[in-house]
Amino acid sequence: MASHLVLLLIISFVFSTSSSSPSPRFPRQTLQSRARTQPSRGGDRNSYRYETKYFSQQLDHFSFADLPKFSQRYLINSDHWTGASELGPIFLYCGNEGDIEWFATNSGFIWEIAPKFGALLVFPEHRYYGESMPYGNREEAYKNATTLSYLTTEQALADFAVFVTDLKRNLSAEASPVVLFGGSYGGMLAAWMRLKYPHIAIGALASSAPILQFEDLVPPQTFYDIVSNDFKRESSSCFSTIKDSWDAIIAEGEKENGLQQLSKTFHFCRALNSTDDLSGWLDSAYSYLAMVDYPYAADFMMPLPGHPIKEVCRKIDGASSDASILERIYAGVSVYYNYTGKVGCFELDDDPHGLDGWNWQACTEMVMPMSSSQENSMFTTYDFNYSSYKEDCWNTFGVNPRPRWVTTELGGHDIETTLKSFGSNIIFSNGLLDPWSGGSVLKNLSSTIVALVTEEGGHHLDLRPSTPEDPKWLVEQREAEIRLIQEWIRTYRLEKVAQFSLLKSSW
Amino acid sequence: MASHLVLLLIISFVFSTSSSSPSPRFPRQTLQSRARTQPSRGGDRNSYRYETKYFSQQLDHFSFADLPKFSQRYLINSDHWTGASELGPIFLYCGNEGDIEWFATNSGFIWEIAPKFGALLVFPEHRYYGESMPYGNREEAYKNATTLSYLTTEQALADFAVFVTDLKRNLSAEASPVVLFGGSYGGMLAAWMRLKYPHIAIGALASSAPILQFEDLVPPQTFYDIVSNDFKRESSSCFSTIKDSWDAIIAEGEKENGLQQLSKTFHFCRALNSTDDLSGWLDSAYSYLAMVDYPYAADFMMPLPGHPIKEVCRKIDGASSDASILERIYAGVSVYYNYTGKVGCFELDDDPHGLDGWNWQACTEMVMPMSSSQENSMFTTYDFNYSSYKEDCWNTFGVNPRPRWVTTELGGHDIETTLKSFGSNIIFSNGLLDPWSGGSVLKNLSSTIVALVTEEGGHHLDLRPSTPEDPKWLVEQREAEIRLIQEWIRTYRLEKVAQFSLLKSSW
Repeated sequence: MASHLVLLLIISFVFSTSSSSPSPRFPRQTLQSRARTQPSRGGDRNSYRYETKYFSQQLDHFSFADLPKFSQRYLINSDHWTGASELGPIFLYCGNEGDIEWFATNSGFIWEIAPKFGALLVFPEHRYYGESMPYGNREEAYKNATTLSYLTTEQALADFAVFVTDLKRNLSAEASPVVLFGGSYGGMLAAWMRLKYPHIAIGALASSAPILQFEDLVPPQTFYDIVSNDFKRESSSCFSTIKDSWDAIIAEGEKENGLQQLSKTFHFCRALNSTDDLSGWLDSAYSYLAMVDYPYAADFMMPLPGHPIKEVCRKIDGASSDASILERIYAGVSVYYNYTGKVGCFELDDDPHGLDGWNWQACTEMVMPMSSSQENSMFTTYDFNYSSYKEDCWNTFGVNPRPRWVTTELGGHDIETTLKSFGSNIIFSNGLLDPWSGGSVLKNLSSTIVALVTEEGGHHLDLRPSTPEDPKWLVEQREAEIRLIQEWIRTYRLEKVAQFSLLKSSW
Repeated sequence: MASHLVLLLIISFVFSTSSSSPSPRFPRQTLQSRARTQPSRGGDRNSYRYETKYFSQQLDHFSFADLPKFSQRYLINSDHWTGASELGPIFLYCGNEGDIEWFATNSGFIWEIAPKFGALLVFPEHRYYGESMPYGNREEAYKNATTLSYLTTEQALADFAVFVTDLKRNLSAEASPVVLFGGSYGGMLAAWMRLKYPHIAIGALASSAPILQFEDLVPPQTFYDIVSNDFKRESSSCFSTIKDSWDAIIAEGEKENGLQQLSKTFHFCRALNSTDDLSGWLDSAYSYLAMVDYPYAADFMMPLPGHPIKEVCRKIDGASSDASILERIYAGVSVYYNYTGKVGCFELDDDPHGLDGWNWQACTEMVMPMSSSQENSMFTTYDFNYSSYKEDCWNTFGVNPRPRWVTTELGGHDIETTLKSFGSNIIFSNGLLDPWSGGSVLKNLSSTIVALVTEEGGHHLDLRPSTPEDPKWLVEQREAEIRLIQEWIRTYRLEKVAQFSLLKSSW
């Protein structure tokens, strides 16, 4: 295949309406509506009760241009809140690139710990996603580069800051500590909120937040190397079969009626237009399998067994001895695309002109260079090419990326020195099976900037609801998170009490 | 008088073309061009050699709207720089609301310490001031609320971040530490840079930076109480004379030909239109006298003797016993407006429609509530009225202020808790005679967030060039600043060396 840039975080996968063909290529998805409507395994969706409210936001916080305000949706639950007078904490989930209801109902951890903390829960939605559409509706908001131009990370962070400041004022809870949560891009937002708005929140749990996946901060092959390694650790023959399959696909495609044959082998409902489409479809499956390589059966992206990569490799390795390489691949990838066995044939989502929020973000600020190395990767070798990336963005959106802006505005270079002297109360939690972990912070930077790393963890597994099948290391990771958050709140309250006593003694 | 809101920082006074009559009233100025062209006493302007360069900036860093870039002017001097390989520091003065050449040549302290530090000096200009005009020129930039809409503090901070990041890259000096300097609004920018861009600079000397002069962070009467106290400490009769003068002015103005008589008494070139104009003119003089109540003769705003308030009060108190209250006031204020004795008559600057950059900022983000108390103030009692403030802004610029935005975006509430746990390496230097000191940070917040307070200091006196007349406390203040900056750089370099060794040992 020409390139295989997984530019979307996992959640984007679910919500994006991106195309399969343009390069930079974004992963396809076929079960978009399904993931949105199905309850997650382990979480009882009905137990997530919330009110839905709306908050009027500036479209551009950083200019005084005469622009229409927009309604930001947020979900709120105060069942367990101990209230302002008790300095009851406010837990704020930083909405990321999708419908906030989906994030709220897939973040069981926050709901489960709310009673213990006596916390108010709020889930503000990210602008330009879900119902939080500028210009009244999605069609207008996504009309062109001008209407999309305010879909930026800094605006979203400012939305959160303005929202929670106003909320606290309305609740007379100015002194209540705010703790931030977020997974994936939402985790990046949580960490960045802490960095850019240290006065707004006292700490952040940034789960699977690849804040270093920019510019030259980590090697560009990091992501695909981790995906590949997740397969290799299960089975080196599985890894080799996948690595060999790309050439086999091209060779098959070049034959007469090759595309038809490939379509048949892989059970597509309609004939493939190119082998690239197939390669992209497989690429997506492997990448997402790596992210959701959870230790128990789950239904986050797709209904999947526990340790799904092990399952995939079992199918690939265990096919009958006369199976072709492509038949093996099909058997493996079916674990991902058709674990329930209910899908008769597969559809490729083929709207090359669908404008998607995350694609816009990837074409403006969220430029994450991704390559695939010759040595360690099971994918086709590919070197990130910024020129063609930029060209594609121009062709798609009529916008030029600012690839250095994120590191200038939000930092990243020499983050260790920066955070050691200026920063506190951030948990970077990562599972090493998750390919995004390579772009996150994997070691403690100070006594309060802490990395919680699990060898066997996947993409923001810790934010998911607890299940009876949770392995010990996952239970312990969540306990560690709870202890750290308790410590932030305790320290904050002591400080407050000290100030109050000081004040009182001066009366 | 109706109100006396000193909304401008001292520098604005020099550069603004604001009116004398609209309310909220901005201080008048009569010697604008003079202050800009005269060398400062104590500083040898010819010794400030620099190259003038230009940097292409985004007009809106926080959106991807299709806007023209603009040229940001900056001054640079590398005479003493030890270079990238030595981790030679970069001293960056955060240009504030005026021509950057004026700030550069009035910040002798930075020039004087450059050789000791082997520092590169850069003075980027603030957008919409001096030559750094969006849309090609001042007329276009200031045309209306739409063209002015990108004149915001956050955009200016981002300009500095982008500018210095690019500069360092071009000099291959990515590892060189940046130290920020700024006085008045420039000091606020330096402190805010440190808070919002901790990865860009290692520390900031924020001189006379009233970052708390917003919302309800300090009592609104703070500024005028300090001005008043500066007079009272010199002479309580002087204070009382001024306090009584406002009624005397109104009484005189109500007489037949009263305004003509007042114009004569105060030697205006043209007849006054209202007693408000006179009151505003006096208000400005007292306020600025309080700011520049320096211990030695200086020519920063105006040529003035050392301890000018003492001089003013000497004139007020020492007038002949048959002098009227208004004659006493005139004698006093002449020290400010006509110390050289060369001004034959005074002009009021009377352009009620002049659009001024700082006035725009005051009408958008920089909303600093100012009142004047009955008890402690020598000014007419006045309670800040946000409604009329807002209305004036609408009438002047067609813009609505966002009075709570600064504290949301840049913090301020509970700054002690915030900075104690998240922040480092800021010096807040203040002289207590300076009325802006009341809105700044006057005590140490942590071991590295330090307040250097001088009882007898004025508005960012420490940034001025040294003189033979410098009192001991001023010399000591500057020495303390140098020591702290040395410590920041030393710590940073140790950290760098440790990283380098670690890196080397892993080779």
